[in-house]
Amino acid sequence: MGQPQEPESAADQDRPALGVGMVGYAFMGAAHSQGWRTVGRVFELPMRPVLAAVCGRDGAAVRGAADRLGWAAAETDWRALIARDDVDLVDICTPGDSHAEIALAALEAGKHVLCEKPLANTVAEAEAMTAAAERARSRGRIAMTGFNYRRLPATAQARRMIAEGRLGTLRHVRVAYLQDWLVDPDFPLTWRLNRDKAGSGALGDLGAHIVDLAQYLAGEELAGVSALTETFVRERPVLDGASAGLSGSGSGERGPVTVDDAAVFTGRFASGALASFEATRFATGRKNALRIELNGSLGSLAFDLERLNELSFHDHTEPAATAGFRRILVTEPDHPYLEGWWPPGHGLGYEHSFVHQARDLVRAIASDTPAEPSFATGLQVQRVLAAVEESAAKNAVYTPVPRA
Amino acid sequence: MGQPQEPESAADQDRPALGVGMVGYAFMGAAHSQGWRTVGRVFELPMRPVLAAVCGRDGAAVRGAADRLGWAAAETDWRALIARDDVDLVDICTPGDSHAEIALAALEAGKHVLCEKPLANTVAEAEAMTAAAERARSRGRIAMTGFNYRRLPATAQARRMIAEGRLGTLRHVRVAYLQDWLVDPDFPLTWRLNRDKAGSGALGDLGAHIVDLAQYLAGEELAGVSALTETFVRERPVLDGASAGLSGSGSGERGPVTVDDAAVFTGRFASGALASFEATRFATGRKNALRIELNGSLGSLAFDLERLNELSFHDHTEPAATAGFRRILVTEPDHPYLEGWWPPGHGLGYEHSFVHQARDLVRAIASDTPAEPSFATGLQVQRVLAAVEESAAKNAVYTPVPRA
Amino acid sequence: MGQPQEPESAADQDRPALGVGMVGYAFMGAAHSQGWRTVGRVFELPMRPVLAAVCGRDGAAVRGAADRLGWAAAETDWRALIARDDVDLVDICTPGDSHAEIALAALEAGKHVLCEKPLANTVAEAEAMTAAAERARSRGRIAMTGFNYRRLPATAQARRMIAEGRLGTLRHVRVAYLQDWLVDPDFPLTWRLNRDKAGSGALGDLGAHIVDLAQYLAGEELAGVSALTETFVRERPVLDGASAGLSGSGSGERGPVTVDDAAVFTGRFASGALASFEATRFATGRKNALRIELNGSLGSLAFDLERLNELSFHDHTEPAATAGFRRILVTEPDHPYLEGWWPPGHGLGYEHSFVHQARDLVRAIASDTPAEPSFATGLQVQRVLAAVEESAAKNAVYTPVPRA
Amino acid sequence: MGQPQEPESAADQDRPALGVGMVGYAFMGAAHSQGWRTVGRVFELPMRPVLAAVCGRDGAAVRGAADRLGWAAAETDWRALIARDDVDLVDICTPGDSHAEIALAALEAGKHVLCEKPLANTVAEAEAMTAAAERARSRGRIAMTGFNYRRLPATAQARRMIAEGRLGTLRHVRVAYLQDWLVDPDFPLTWRLNRDKAGSGALGDLGAHIVDLAQYLAGEELAGVSALTETFVRERPVLDGASAGLSGSGSGERGPVTVDDAAVFTGRFASGALASFEATRFATGRKNALRIELNGSLGSLAFDLERLNELSFHDHTEPAATAGFRRILVTEPDHPYLEGWWPPGHGLGYEHSFVHQARDLVRAIASDTPAEPSFATGLQVQRVLAAVEESAAKNAVYTPVPRA
Repeated sequence: MGQPQEPESAADQDRPALGVGMVGYAFMGAAHSQGWRTVGRVFELPMRPVLAAVCGRDGAAVRGAADRLGWAAAETDWRALIARDDVDLVDICTPGDSHAEIALAALEAGKHVLCEKPLANTVAEAEAMTAAAERARSRGRIAMTGFNYRRLPATAQARRMIAEGRLGTLRHVRVAYLQDWLVDPDFPLTWRLNRDKAGSGALGDLGAHIVDLAQYLAGEELAGVSALTETFVRERPVLDGASAGLSGSGSGERGPVTVDDAAVFTGRFASGALASFEATRFATGRKNALRIELNGSLGSLAFDLERLNELSFHDHTEPAATAGFRRILVTEPDHPYLEGWWPPGHGLGYEHSFVHQARDLVRAIASDTPAEPSFATGLQVQRVLAAVEESAAKNAVYTPVPRA
Repeated sequence: MGQPQEPESAADQDRPALGVGMVGYAFMGAAHSQGWRTVGRVFELPMRPVLAAVCGRDGAAVRGAADRLGWAAAETDWRALIARDDVDLVDICTPGDSHAEIALAALEAGKHVLCEKPLANTVAEAEAMTAAAERARSRGRIAMTGFNYRRLPATAQARRMIAEGRLGTLRHVRVAYLQDWLVDPDFPLTWRLNRDKAGSGALGDLGAHIVDLAQYLAGEELAGVSALTETFVRERPVLDGASAGLSGSGSGERGPVTVDDAAVFTGRFASGALASFEATRFATGRKNALRIELNGSLGSLAFDLERLNELSFHDHTEPAATAGFRRILVTEPDHPYLEGWWPPGHGLGYEHSFVHQARDLVRAIASDTPAEPSFATGLQVQRVLAAVEESAAKNAVYTPVPRA
Repeated sequence: MGQPQEPESAADQDRPALGVGMVGYAFMGAAHSQGWRTVGRVFELPMRPVLAAVCGRDGAAVRGAADRLGWAAAETDWRALIARDDVDLVDICTPGDSHAEIALAALEAGKHVLCEKPLANTVAEAEAMTAAAERARSRGRIAMTGFNYRRLPATAQARRMIAEGRLGTLRHVRVAYLQDWLVDPDFPLTWRLNRDKAGSGALGDLGAHIVDLAQYLAGEELAGVSALTETFVRERPVLDGASAGLSGSGSGERGPVTVDDAAVFTGRFASGALASFEATRFATGRKNALRIELNGSLGSLAFDLERLNELSFHDHTEPAATAGFRRILVTEPDHPYLEGWWPPGHGLGYEHSFVHQARDLVRAIASDTPAEPSFATGLQVQRVLAAVEESAAKNAVYTPVPRA
Repeated sequence: MGQPQEPESAADQDRPALGVGMVGYAFMGAAHSQGWRTVGRVFELPMRPVLAAVCGRDGAAVRGAADRLGWAAAETDWRALIARDDVDLVDICTPGDSHAEIALAALEAGKHVLCEKPLANTVAEAEAMTAAAERARSRGRIAMTGFNYRRLPATAQARRMIAEGRLGTLRHVRVAYLQDWLVDPDFPLTWRLNRDKAGSGALGDLGAHIVDLAQYLAGEELAGVSALTETFVRERPVLDGASAGLSGSGSGERGPVTVDDAAVFTGRFASGALASFEATRFATGRKNALRIELNGSLGSLAFDLERLNELSFHDHTEPAATAGFRRILVTEPDHPYLEGWWPPGHGLGYEHSFVHQARDLVRAIASDTPAEPSFATGLQVQRVLAAVEESAAKNAVYTPVPRA
């Protein structure tokens, strides 16, 4: 292709370092590492992220991960990680049951914090974290929730268009996050199927993403919800090792699934727009189908994570004879986040959202500006999820989402 | 293309006539007329449908319609139509408020009846109609509800595959019927926006179709529902003429919309599968997007009426490396209803569903076999819609669907 | 849906009759019959088409076809058909080897003529037919070539947009017509695989359609072509009966395929735009994929017959950040041919193109206006096909298309 | 998602280093840098790639690029780069006119070489390079051509399926590489539009990719081709700076475009399959649409680079009633290259092909095994391109591709 890319003259060493310490190094840890390693190679940044240390409980394993993922040091105690002088930012990639404790300690210690979603396993934890983040903010610290799907070029472009008024008055938001990795009844009982570790099932894992994305794109909050949840397969094979691999279990023992397999819920936005949501791990054949469509009086937008470089837009102000949903390839230089990447049509992948998240967080820290989604935003999503669970427990009755 | 079609030797005149009398000649009447005119030209039938008479209140208009649509006679009183000796079957294409009265009279008079959906505007009416249909059945009369979307090759093929067990245990059914013809707040106040005439709004018009189609494909009934409904635009321009054209109104007067613009609801099937439904006339840019997806333990099926010659199928028994949703062009000779039409790949249109409906009804009458969807089926759909309205009136609480 | 359709007041009997006599009643005959039967029911017409008589060699078979397809009379000699007083228009649906003789006789007898494509099996025949058509024109007779794919709403809408200048200067036209019904080497040796009957193979059958459609949409003619052709399976099972069914042959005998299975060719339009074409019956899995894309300096259009209610349009004058191919559902009242059909989103099928062809031809006859595509247009397409064959025979050398 | 990723215990430092020296740091240099930086973080490798030095003519610019892209050192003379002891592999990312000289020197100096495509600007250069690579091979050196599109999971999966015989006898290969960045006649005269620098236009840039990919997937070579080429816009604005940015030129001066804007060609594979190709920078609205479809007697495969995580497959051995093109999301653990990345459905991007290219090259070097595509393969592609140009110059006459 034809567009040469000009080298920057910025001298890397002149910029202040931002030491990152990451807790957890499984799927999310690997994705965040890719973000931290890559962000400074692609974007002009006011600070220089340094992969200072990674933390995990098993010493040998965490040293292997540090080596493989590019972290300078390894720790086995997250308190030690937080205590390190070379760690300015604590990046929390653990299961939800440890988010609150780590985040509170890190903020207390004067660190910036990036915390994976869902922010916490309970509203109470999320409230404590938000309060701590607000206190820390007054001392110049930034706390951010890791709703990475806001940071795909297509979703960011959608938000831009909605903010510009291209949809007019919002009428409908329909969202689904469809996966199928639990269809097999012999898929093992991982931590994600354990309420004590994961908080909830598809709802917290997938539902948190779509509630955040829907509210972010809509530019408004859900007022209330009505929900049904279901656990289709109630017992699964127990894993041999602790949080071990997924190759199954020799024992034949089965244990209870204590989270939801699927949640379907409807809701109303503050403006009166109707919403419908579905989060499931039983949508056979759908691998990662986070789909959102918004219909407004002037137009509509649709997105599917399985085609993440595309955005579908219908402009209702066009004459009817030439109107239709257009497929925007969100790979143009004018699109969000694209300035650092490739020529038009050269698509990005899933993990680029973490590079972009790192970019935006570094810029917020450098400019001492609050970052979105803040912990307060993460808390509000938690309140929606709690209202969903409350409604599901009360025969689907419409349940308002408490306001902050 | 290469496949010649052999002429039939059947002598048209040897088969008994089936005199059809149609009430109403607007959109549905035109579509049914096309069905009656065409069916005997495409399919081998045991009886010969004759377009005996059409009925409407305005004498000049109905004579024009008879002439244009191919009906031998015109009537201005539906009781006179029913009384005609040359009418064996009464085809009811009027708004829902007159279905019960006409159907009851026709069945009483010993006629077969085809009634457009929704079967009636209330459960009580539908119950009376069903009872009458059952009495008439004992006298050899057939009554059928016009859920024509069962009779597209793609939906019929889907039903066939589900009946063969290709989906395994059903987990999810997600259905939407999305249109956008009310987005413009100046679209006029037609009869479809008047509760007295139409019974309900998107729910009865579109929701009836998707509830029937979902239950038909799933092969089971909904056990209960939880619903939200909304009327986004509460006043619209009054039409000048009676049932006049849509070109708007000169007076500037506005009247109240007394039906729902949209309904979103969730539900549980008898087997425990989760369902989500959406019926709306405010999905900007979606013209006729009746979409249904069913996920089961062995596979999934998906359909979109905007691409009505296609069926999407995922076979979960395939190795993961080569599995995926396949787009079946439902235009092969082996597909339902295709024996009479064109070579592979030569797609059919919307109105072909009425040709197929006519085919199946004629065959049922000729063989004195009950036809599906029966009035009892139409009644059960009505009960679902009533439960939806009841739930919507009761803060979305989960509302069981009464069993027959 | 909401748009009622007003009845016409036109009294059918006041309009003059147009007696149609059709020769051939296989696939094309059935499709044309559907067109003639339906056109007056859907569109306001200045004349009233009457299905006067159909002609075929086998008396019993043609009587059966007349009965089934709705023709008033049956003839076994096409000369007798032409001679009938109640036949004003001769509709030729036979294989290509008889087109010239029938058309010349019909024109000579003062009849209007509709002739299926390809117009003839040789350029010489097509020249004679065109000359005869021009002579007949001076006596008020209309001759038309049956390139029905011009008459889908989507292709007609594409032509309209191109005529309005929405594509700017044309750069590329890429066209393919992909079918797969010959992939099986045991598919029998039908008349379409016999050069004497069919003239050529995929080239004449499919290539004729795409050459016409490409030139029609482009609004200009091909200047020259370079071609390769191939017959992949050179012998096939001989059919038992004469022009019999396709259920195969008991004898096991195989005979030579004397036409091409596939043709790929490139070309230049008069304006300098580059073109590429492919016509094949060996595109496994493609059933009826007539695909055309045109790229111009201001925009692009794309169409696929397998999704015949859709047109894809890219408007290059849009800002890059919101531009993309939009999927126009060509089912709006403003779209060509849609005034007589259904509300938005209710798609049409393949055979509607024949209804539209009938409409346009009746109007041309009633207004004594030349109809397009004329025989001259059919001849020009024939010249392109001949240039393709000449190039294929001469090692693909670029071969100019002779101008009229 | 549910699949945790186990850390490796491999100690990074135990593996031998592979010093990489890269020449050129524009678009391709940035993409290759991302590959080299990332490959060891994602895949288990037998050697440890070290980004030793990058080379460019402008000292300040190359130092900036080294800093930004992560190279330890910067050189301004490629001969000095080759001479460095810490460089084991020379990665050539310059325009085509310097490939031969650099590659020959690097091989002569005992280095491994990775050379961007097209391998050279002339067949003679490519022959010299291939001969040098073969000599170097005997000394244990590896030379590879950078046809990165072989290394997307979807294309690699396609090759795997074809090698397994899933397509049967190949009948058709249709390929296009459609871009639109030259549609604007004021797009400036970059080096890619200069024959002296780029060798050819769309043909060498895009055509080289599709010729390689088609032959790779087909598993066989083109026997001959017939071609048309065109330069639609013959003069463009001269750039002010040397190889400067694209923001246009103040001078208003225009210079001649000396390469093709587009090439359309047909061909025959050795087996008799027909092929059609199109390479263009004038396909308005198509950004990076590298599309390939292969039809065989048992099935078909299709791919579009604009949806790079998907592969479309039709299995013709399925019953017709359930057959269709399936969309395989090539994101499963069983798919090529996926072992190191994310859970199912989490798509990759364009630049991942360079990570995979690096992986395969490092493994080839470590195991002293020839790497594909070799320089011989690059030369064969060059011969096809030369035959295309020869045919285009000779009125499209079918031109055999010389065999090695």
